[in-house]
Amino acid sequence: MQLVTVGTVAFDRIETPFGKADKVVGGAATYISLAASFFLEELGLVSVVGGDFPQEVMATMRGRGIDLAGLEVLQGKESFFWAGRYHYDMNSRDTLETRLNVLLDLDPTLPEHFKGARYVMLGNLDPVVQAKVLDQVKDPALVCMDTMNFWMDSALPKLREVIARVDILTINDAEARQLSGEHSLVKAANRILAMGPRYLVVKKGEHGALLFSEDRVFFAPALPLEDVIDPTGAGDTFAGGFIGYLARTQDHSFDNLKRAIIVGSALASFCCERFGIQRLLEIKREDIDHRVQQFVDLVDFDIELVEE
Amino acid sequence: MQLVTVGTVAFDRIETPFGKADKVVGGAATYISLAASFFLEELGLVSVVGGDFPQEVMATMRGRGIDLAGLEVLQGKESFFWAGRYHYDMNSRDTLETRLNVLLDLDPTLPEHFKGARYVMLGNLDPVVQAKVLDQVKDPALVCMDTMNFWMDSALPKLREVIARVDILTINDAEARQLSGEHSLVKAANRILAMGPRYLVVKKGEHGALLFSEDRVFFAPALPLEDVIDPTGAGDTFAGGFIGYLARTQDHSFDNLKRAIIVGSALASFCCERFGIQRLLEIKREDIDHRVQQFVDLVDFDIELVEE
Repeated sequence: MQLVTVGTVAFDRIETPFGKADKVVGGAATYISLAASFFLEELGLVSVVGGDFPQEVMATMRGRGIDLAGLEVLQGKESFFWAGRYHYDMNSRDTLETRLNVLLDLDPTLPEHFKGARYVMLGNLDPVVQAKVLDQVKDPALVCMDTMNFWMDSALPKLREVIARVDILTINDAEARQLSGEHSLVKAANRILAMGPRYLVVKKGEHGALLFSEDRVFFAPALPLEDVIDPTGAGDTFAGGFIGYLARTQDHSFDNLKRAIIVGSALASFCCERFGIQRLLEIKREDIDHRVQQFVDLVDFDIELVEE
Repeated sequence: MQLVTVGTVAFDRIETPFGKADKVVGGAATYISLAASFFLEELGLVSVVGGDFPQEVMATMRGRGIDLAGLEVLQGKESFFWAGRYHYDMNSRDTLETRLNVLLDLDPTLPEHFKGARYVMLGNLDPVVQAKVLDQVKDPALVCMDTMNFWMDSALPKLREVIARVDILTINDAEARQLSGEHSLVKAANRILAMGPRYLVVKKGEHGALLFSEDRVFFAPALPLEDVIDPTGAGDTFAGGFIGYLARTQDHSFDNLKRAIIVGSALASFCCERFGIQRLLEIKREDIDHRVQQFVDLVDFDIELVEE
């Protein structure tokens, strides 16, 4: 098992100023696993769904090498449901509705063959659940964790416990400021790295992403897109491409993390081009390679300063 | 004359969540000229001030090669005054007070030796005034223009006339969206380039800047800073570094514009480190070179995609 991911598998209702989708498959673990599957052969998903979750989506995931032995199906119950509406800037959104449903029953027990996973991705979830997954993995080479402001507000002590156990934390810029109490992202990063992680990834949506280590910083832009149809799942898709590339290359140097950030950003840009997971199901590895080249071109410059 | 700049020369009162400055020298043409002066020997400034404007600041500007023959001093009147308050994110602000004062009398007549300028920077001003300056320059090699949403709201037809006459337009992302009526910055850029300019620079403050030509796009990040003290003038400082580098190198290729964007971004990052123009008066050319190298390091990556 190369990678184990825990997170939601869900239905979403999405409204944007430019369109809407009534009930599409979503969830952090769905996006993460699909994105990572471009780079991996053996990856496991840990989550829970209701009997209403479509068999054909599960078949599609299995067809991409995603092992669903850790996906509990609770017949007669309903899957987690989230509804949100994006603002005109497509970079911020309001939650309209959250029905936890089966998520209340999520008490993950990892299948035996998941426990030797070398890479672990803790998708955004109650930190209690994230910790339970981490407890069951024997000797991971690298653990990456996503979270959100909700857990900072409601479960900070437990959240801090889990953060102290992971190698990489991925959060957005507002969350980095909240978690650290610092407005400057440079200072925020220093404080958060002091909480335990070796690396911090700050996701800024359409404004790109920053990677911090103790003494280095890297910036990756987001690709300017003709049309952003739906940003839902872009952060999870980013994380999936990121951890998938790392699990594939097994190189945890800062230089390789930079590459992983670019790969994650490329995948996230595809995610935004259609509602839900649709675009991730359409693209092929050569599409990702082509888009990575666009990122190279986007930021490439050479400069020799003029003499005084 | 290598460069002529028109714009405000003013006093600012600035409040941020972290400090304030009661009455500091500011104004678009001040920042632009000081930033450009790092690269040029002969540059002219066109503006108007009251008798209250400090002689020692004018002496400092002259000491940096800035020719003030085009700066009218109206004794007994007061200089343009602007007061603003930054929000906690330091990326947005409210105007608290604007006293146009002498700006109402600005009807620029260029000194003879300004009229042969090869490069022209039209700082943010009434487009009627920008056009008057442009009318008087004989045969410029390159004209760059800055503007803001205020003129889009109040003087759009005249603004469009001036935009049609310039080579490069620099505006922020919200203004690009307003001017084009397109939300996607890619589509917005296409529409704006169709209005006349060969290049569009979209300034995004702490999120960097984008450069568009008809068929290419380049992204430059902003440098993550430990402390942002005062972003006032950062956009003008960016424009000044940008046009100053272009006027120095006299190369209008896309590749050289990318370099100019990086140089402008480096200067803008310094501007934010102190209130007003203070930091621009402290730094030396080697500080700029050092900071440009930080930009190189910030975005540099090499990637070879893993085999399927």
